[in-house]
Amino acid sequence: VDNQSNVIRRSGRFLQSLDDCDGANTIIVGAPMDITSSGRPGSRYAPAAIRVASELIEDYSPTLDRQLEDACFFDAGDILMPYGDVESSLKNIEDGCWSFYSASKRVLLLGGEHLVTAPAVKAAHRAYEDLVVLHFDAHADLRDDYYGMKLSHATVMRRVAEIVGMQHLWQFGIRSGAREEYELMRASGQMYYEDMLSPSGRASAAARVVDAVADRPVYLTIDIDALDPSVAPGTGTPEPGGLSYTDLMDMLLRLRQLRVVGMDLVEVNPMLDASGCTLVAAAKLIRELLLCF
Amino acid sequence: VDNQSNVIRRSGRFLQSLDDCDGANTIIVGAPMDITSSGRPGSRYAPAAIRVASELIEDYSPTLDRQLEDACFFDAGDILMPYGDVESSLKNIEDGCWSFYSASKRVLLLGGEHLVTAPAVKAAHRAYEDLVVLHFDAHADLRDDYYGMKLSHATVMRRVAEIVGMQHLWQFGIRSGAREEYELMRASGQMYYEDMLSPSGRASAAARVVDAVADRPVYLTIDIDALDPSVAPGTGTPEPGGLSYTDLMDMLLRLRQLRVVGMDLVEVNPMLDASGCTLVAAAKLIRELLLCF
Amino acid sequence: VDNQSNVIRRSGRFLQSLDDCDGANTIIVGAPMDITSSGRPGSRYAPAAIRVASELIEDYSPTLDRQLEDACFFDAGDILMPYGDVESSLKNIEDGCWSFYSASKRVLLLGGEHLVTAPAVKAAHRAYEDLVVLHFDAHADLRDDYYGMKLSHATVMRRVAEIVGMQHLWQFGIRSGAREEYELMRASGQMYYEDMLSPSGRASAAARVVDAVADRPVYLTIDIDALDPSVAPGTGTPEPGGLSYTDLMDMLLRLRQLRVVGMDLVEVNPMLDASGCTLVAAAKLIRELLLCF
Amino acid sequence: VDNQSNVIRRSGRFLQSLDDCDGANTIIVGAPMDITSSGRPGSRYAPAAIRVASELIEDYSPTLDRQLEDACFFDAGDILMPYGDVESSLKNIEDGCWSFYSASKRVLLLGGEHLVTAPAVKAAHRAYEDLVVLHFDAHADLRDDYYGMKLSHATVMRRVAEIVGMQHLWQFGIRSGAREEYELMRASGQMYYEDMLSPSGRASAAARVVDAVADRPVYLTIDIDALDPSVAPGTGTPEPGGLSYTDLMDMLLRLRQLRVVGMDLVEVNPMLDASGCTLVAAAKLIRELLLCF
Amino acid sequence: VDNQSNVIRRSGRFLQSLDDCDGANTIIVGAPMDITSSGRPGSRYAPAAIRVASELIEDYSPTLDRQLEDACFFDAGDILMPYGDVESSLKNIEDGCWSFYSASKRVLLLGGEHLVTAPAVKAAHRAYEDLVVLHFDAHADLRDDYYGMKLSHATVMRRVAEIVGMQHLWQFGIRSGAREEYELMRASGQMYYEDMLSPSGRASAAARVVDAVADRPVYLTIDIDALDPSVAPGTGTPEPGGLSYTDLMDMLLRLRQLRVVGMDLVEVNPMLDASGCTLVAAAKLIRELLLCF
Amino acid sequence: VDNQSNVIRRSGRFLQSLDDCDGANTIIVGAPMDITSSGRPGSRYAPAAIRVASELIEDYSPTLDRQLEDACFFDAGDILMPYGDVESSLKNIEDGCWSFYSASKRVLLLGGEHLVTAPAVKAAHRAYEDLVVLHFDAHADLRDDYYGMKLSHATVMRRVAEIVGMQHLWQFGIRSGAREEYELMRASGQMYYEDMLSPSGRASAAARVVDAVADRPVYLTIDIDALDPSVAPGTGTPEPGGLSYTDLMDMLLRLRQLRVVGMDLVEVNPMLDASGCTLVAAAKLIRELLLCF
Repeated sequence: VDNQSNVIRRSGRFLQSLDDCDGANTIIVGAPMDITSSGRPGSRYAPAAIRVASELIEDYSPTLDRQLEDACFFDAGDILMPYGDVESSLKNIEDGCWSFYSASKRVLLLGGEHLVTAPAVKAAHRAYEDLVVLHFDAHADLRDDYYGMKLSHATVMRRVAEIVGMQHLWQFGIRSGAREEYELMRASGQMYYEDMLSPSGRASAAARVVDAVADRPVYLTIDIDALDPSVAPGTGTPEPGGLSYTDLMDMLLRLRQLRVVGMDLVEVNPMLDASGCTLVAAAKLIRELLLCF
Repeated sequence: VDNQSNVIRRSGRFLQSLDDCDGANTIIVGAPMDITSSGRPGSRYAPAAIRVASELIEDYSPTLDRQLEDACFFDAGDILMPYGDVESSLKNIEDGCWSFYSASKRVLLLGGEHLVTAPAVKAAHRAYEDLVVLHFDAHADLRDDYYGMKLSHATVMRRVAEIVGMQHLWQFGIRSGAREEYELMRASGQMYYEDMLSPSGRASAAARVVDAVADRPVYLTIDIDALDPSVAPGTGTPEPGGLSYTDLMDMLLRLRQLRVVGMDLVEVNPMLDASGCTLVAAAKLIRELLLCF
Repeated sequence: VDNQSNVIRRSGRFLQSLDDCDGANTIIVGAPMDITSSGRPGSRYAPAAIRVASELIEDYSPTLDRQLEDACFFDAGDILMPYGDVESSLKNIEDGCWSFYSASKRVLLLGGEHLVTAPAVKAAHRAYEDLVVLHFDAHADLRDDYYGMKLSHATVMRRVAEIVGMQHLWQFGIRSGAREEYELMRASGQMYYEDMLSPSGRASAAARVVDAVADRPVYLTIDIDALDPSVAPGTGTPEPGGLSYTDLMDMLLRLRQLRVVGMDLVEVNPMLDASGCTLVAAAKLIRELLLCF
Repeated sequence: VDNQSNVIRRSGRFLQSLDDCDGANTIIVGAPMDITSSGRPGSRYAPAAIRVASELIEDYSPTLDRQLEDACFFDAGDILMPYGDVESSLKNIEDGCWSFYSASKRVLLLGGEHLVTAPAVKAAHRAYEDLVVLHFDAHADLRDDYYGMKLSHATVMRRVAEIVGMQHLWQFGIRSGAREEYELMRASGQMYYEDMLSPSGRASAAARVVDAVADRPVYLTIDIDALDPSVAPGTGTPEPGGLSYTDLMDMLLRLRQLRVVGMDLVEVNPMLDASGCTLVAAAKLIRELLLCF
Repeated sequence: VDNQSNVIRRSGRFLQSLDDCDGANTIIVGAPMDITSSGRPGSRYAPAAIRVASELIEDYSPTLDRQLEDACFFDAGDILMPYGDVESSLKNIEDGCWSFYSASKRVLLLGGEHLVTAPAVKAAHRAYEDLVVLHFDAHADLRDDYYGMKLSHATVMRRVAEIVGMQHLWQFGIRSGAREEYELMRASGQMYYEDMLSPSGRASAAARVVDAVADRPVYLTIDIDALDPSVAPGTGTPEPGGLSYTDLMDMLLRLRQLRVVGMDLVEVNPMLDASGCTLVAAAKLIRELLLCF
Repeated sequence: VDNQSNVIRRSGRFLQSLDDCDGANTIIVGAPMDITSSGRPGSRYAPAAIRVASELIEDYSPTLDRQLEDACFFDAGDILMPYGDVESSLKNIEDGCWSFYSASKRVLLLGGEHLVTAPAVKAAHRAYEDLVVLHFDAHADLRDDYYGMKLSHATVMRRVAEIVGMQHLWQFGIRSGAREEYELMRASGQMYYEDMLSPSGRASAAARVVDAVADRPVYLTIDIDALDPSVAPGTGTPEPGGLSYTDLMDMLLRLRQLRVVGMDLVEVNPMLDASGCTLVAAAKLIRELLLCF
């Protein structure tokens, strides 16, 4: 009398998740937090909503000619988020991720707001000290503080840069930021925006990244608003002028040979996704991430 | 490295579900089917959405002075529904429910459309042959066929009446139907509508039901549209003139001494519930059902 | 090869409309205009949307024990509304309604905004010179002008009063207006609000109306916002504190013996009716109006 | 006293429809069915909603320099769909379409889900035995069965292929399917996806199709999700990476010389189209289809 | 060339606000914060949205026979909220409110989440040391901590009770809480729920409050979810079984003789208010609060 | 005790507006009118909603390397619109704009519907008699009358052409109109559509415009539906096949050397913008317009 019954299946898991963690290479885990959002909040509901939306896509990726059954992953559920308590929430994320990294698993974290990336990178960096971070986003997120706060969705990549070093941070799709953030990015020379919108631009950007990163371990963080708002309207701070789905996938494929040890997909906001298209795009992206790297 | 970790919890379960079936008295299971809906479809998404909405309510019921921890229940997940195949879907529901009834569990089925009640009652009747059915709804659902179909959300209570006998069917809140359905209900004399809207009407109706049913096993089916559309707008065929939440709870409390062996809550439609209030009302009703009976 | 085919039916008609005007007693016709709305516009889409929503209700009224087949009515379509031209639009409504009144038909006009009532009453008054008007609404609509305009949704009942005489205007459910409108209503003594919320209040109000009106011809205009916003959220200027659906129906039933020669239902706004409940309430009201009077 | 009146027009018809079938070359007819949808249901409301949305577009096509008055078409209404009964619904579609084909009319069917194409092709094939089918879609729809069902939106093109022969099926825009469907398409060599996204790709694909099809009669089926979800979010199973509106129109124009005898537009879902843009795109596509072929 | 021009008016103010603070008795000020929301966030947008919605109501209150011109109030704008920083946000609220209290103004604070009441009461208490607090809500908000946090929307009334003393806290409409919160309320004996739903219950509750409070200064905090979700669906944690608008207004009128020195209206969430009815109800409540006390 | 307090800021202004008109070069003013909309109304709410949405964007434009602080602009509020009265509304717009032009200010008008451009151009023309108008739109808006009305959103550019001369009207992005409008545009030879979709097309169009306009004063009117509906779904009459945000910005940058003396942005409709992306795109466009010209 359990759900081993062949007519009942567990609810609330991403398509084709294994039944337990042990045999899995990759762990999907949610971080339903949106405390520091300056835009419209609601990304806390993304993990649950993306799991439901995953029913709308196929297991098979024609692009990669692989199917989800081939990716040994386990959807572990959600990290506990004490409401309104930024520090405890971040601590839980770091602990939760570390429990997987320390067991030699790869983690795919589902945000939540972008700040969740800070503790996730911290945990990954503990496991892989020469970590490189690839960052797809519309916003630079490089402020040193935001209204006096050091830990915020608007400062997260600055915190990440402090962990891995600015020279190990590569940014793609950024088209919004304060002047000081742009000065930082112009100094680093590792940010690509217009290049992302053409095949040739993507080719040369990817070549430079692949060459520089070589076989160092990579953490890949994707803010859904890297995509154009037409493609991903369900996000707190949409920014016109972004990547099409095809642009993004093409760039990811060009980076396929990198050794990706951790990933996240953040800032999906189901409360703003009337048609559900953002959720489906997110679910499809997750499928491709699981099968690509 | 599993979700036994104290910072991660399984996703997609109703608030305070046990971790497995064995110690549970009551099993929650979803039946995400809306194939025969003549109104606006979408109730297939109710089980997943109600689970998410359950996060918005408290564990404790001030009305009953009990809390969910006291109800030993397990949320088993969802019954598999072959898309578009009415018969197989109903067969799976019957099999799924029977697997629990045969293990002496009580079942709380989450629809889906109202047709899911037919196989659920069939399974319950197999376990309890003198079953009585209490039916809260806006619609009679007593047609013999609907556009030629015998199995439909509009015929479901006729099918149920064929299983348990029309004299063992009690109906509450009905305010819509075809003439022939009203003739049937007037003949049975076991339908209450206006009475549901006043304390004295509910008291005398409840007294008659309690007296007649005595200690026979009871199956309780609640179509969310028994509630007024102002209270539960997220449903396919809203019908003005319904019960307030307080009316419904008051009536259920008056029936508390009955021996309820099976229950369902059907026709919640998240696609039509812009504010989420219907989902929260459904989650609260489920909490009260678990604690009341 | 026409739609006389038994598998095809004409689209865009209210449930059970006859196929042509000749045999009909009552004509349903839409006036999709919302030019002067000071609240949120969109009521122009009401006629089309109510017709679609009529599929969600039954033909049979249990309250009246009659069904729509018994009401000989024809849904004629919509009156042409030159966009943005108030005067031509009102002229078309008057001409359209008069074409039916002059053929001894009863008209049930579907707004659009409340201003459509002015030309509709004008046409009815041309046919019935001792016309009395019953007005259900949240707003008095008795301003003499609104921002300098004589013809506006906010002045419509003042214009109507000029046609039939203030002493032949009865108002129900009004709970919002400017001070000068309230002075007018207090002087007339023919406005009921709190009374509408209790059975005894409705009984005595109805008795007084029935007594005063006797067998004079009656025009009944219902602004959907007479209902509480919880029951009918899809309207441009919702006003808390209104009638429940049951309150409104009870009052209408008490007026059943009146000789109603024209009716309208206005201010339904589908753009604000996320759940569709207002549309269904409107469709059900229309069914009851067709069967009641 | 009819709607021949010059101030009243019939409701619920596509822009500029003739008043009857006889003088028409093309018949528009709706098939409001979504029974087997595995994605989010609601496409049953498409025919009614597209008719309302047609008011938002012009009669004149600047691309084709023709206007709707020149296309002699009649909007016949909707085919009757017994709720929940797949077989009877499909039978009605076949009968309804055949009644037009047998009278030498061209049919433009408005879904509903994609399964409606199966009986529509069957009827067309009865009239034109050497029929070729052109299929625009995001999904292959080539499964042999879907959860055991032979008739499903997910198997419809397999059924169509059985009628006309796989060699007479051409597919465009497909970017999702199971592995076995992709094997079938790779074997047939008649599916184009990436080509659809560039002018040169479309040119060579169109050239090959025009050459192969020559003057055989053509049935054109367009699933709205061939368009990218950014352009057509209102659909049950959106799939990122699709055609822009301009891509699709350009491809259709390149096929203009083909002899199109039947068409359909399916899978528009008004319940998921918050802004109404999908409905407007559908209405404009229908105008162009009527004027182009 | 300024907006003193008679054809231009300042945007973004509540209906009939004075042009500056000096002549005003009451100050409206927004506190757009929703950081600690455990329910669905978005109440940060309430102040702006309520101001827009205020255009939909009249200046005149028929219940009170007064109009807004008579209430000398100034809408000062919004208190600055450093995103994600609970402590600084609360400090700003306290400072902002105190700047008005210290100038002998009355403050009407617009939330935001309920936690904004804590610093607002603190500022009021600094000005009026014998302050009494009246609390309308669905939720007790009396937890000592919430997931370890002392400052949270779920603990706010506990913090308030610590400021004014539990014996000076009166609660109305509470129907949800943890067991320990109910124990606290049962001990205090100053909470009314069922009484709020009947005239006689309200009369005796009001009599007791008026008697006990006498002429002590009163702070009135209204969580919009005290109202039933049918009336106010636009809120983060709707709780069925609440007050109607009429119930709430009737109770407030019975308390009219109290000396109210500060007020707030919190937890309105525009992101969940598809029809805008909650915003209109909030705007009307604010008008009545300004005119009543 | 005023909002000069450093913790309170005025509500309802566009990001970084100065506090008064005197020091400003450019005046932002709203014209919340949608009376003559033949599409879906609601653009009256655009000015208020765009101001709220402006909080979601940065002050700094990376494209222009300038920030809003550098643009001396004042957001004056909204022009008064007598509901339903087209002529008075247009008169107020003309007077309001003229009060700024006569003080040598530049005006950026926020619609409302496109008809607001007629009086705005009239005022600008009074100040600059050799005015040239640049018009970005999906619709030609060149009808001589619309359903008999001379003043309508559908005739506005015809009225504008009568003021400045057809030879001084340049149109971009037009893809919808009646045959007679297309004849007019083909005769003028100053309309570009397909060119707008490619860099080379934009380059040559811009070169021709810059050459012809030289240093004449320019009025720039942008109908948001010039953008593709995927980018700007929140508009009354979306028209597929439009410009991407990047296309539009690129074209505007190519016109940067022109002497722009007046601007407007019209037809944004918040009632149709479920995700808010259109509002954000509008706010960003306004920032770029303020910084670009």
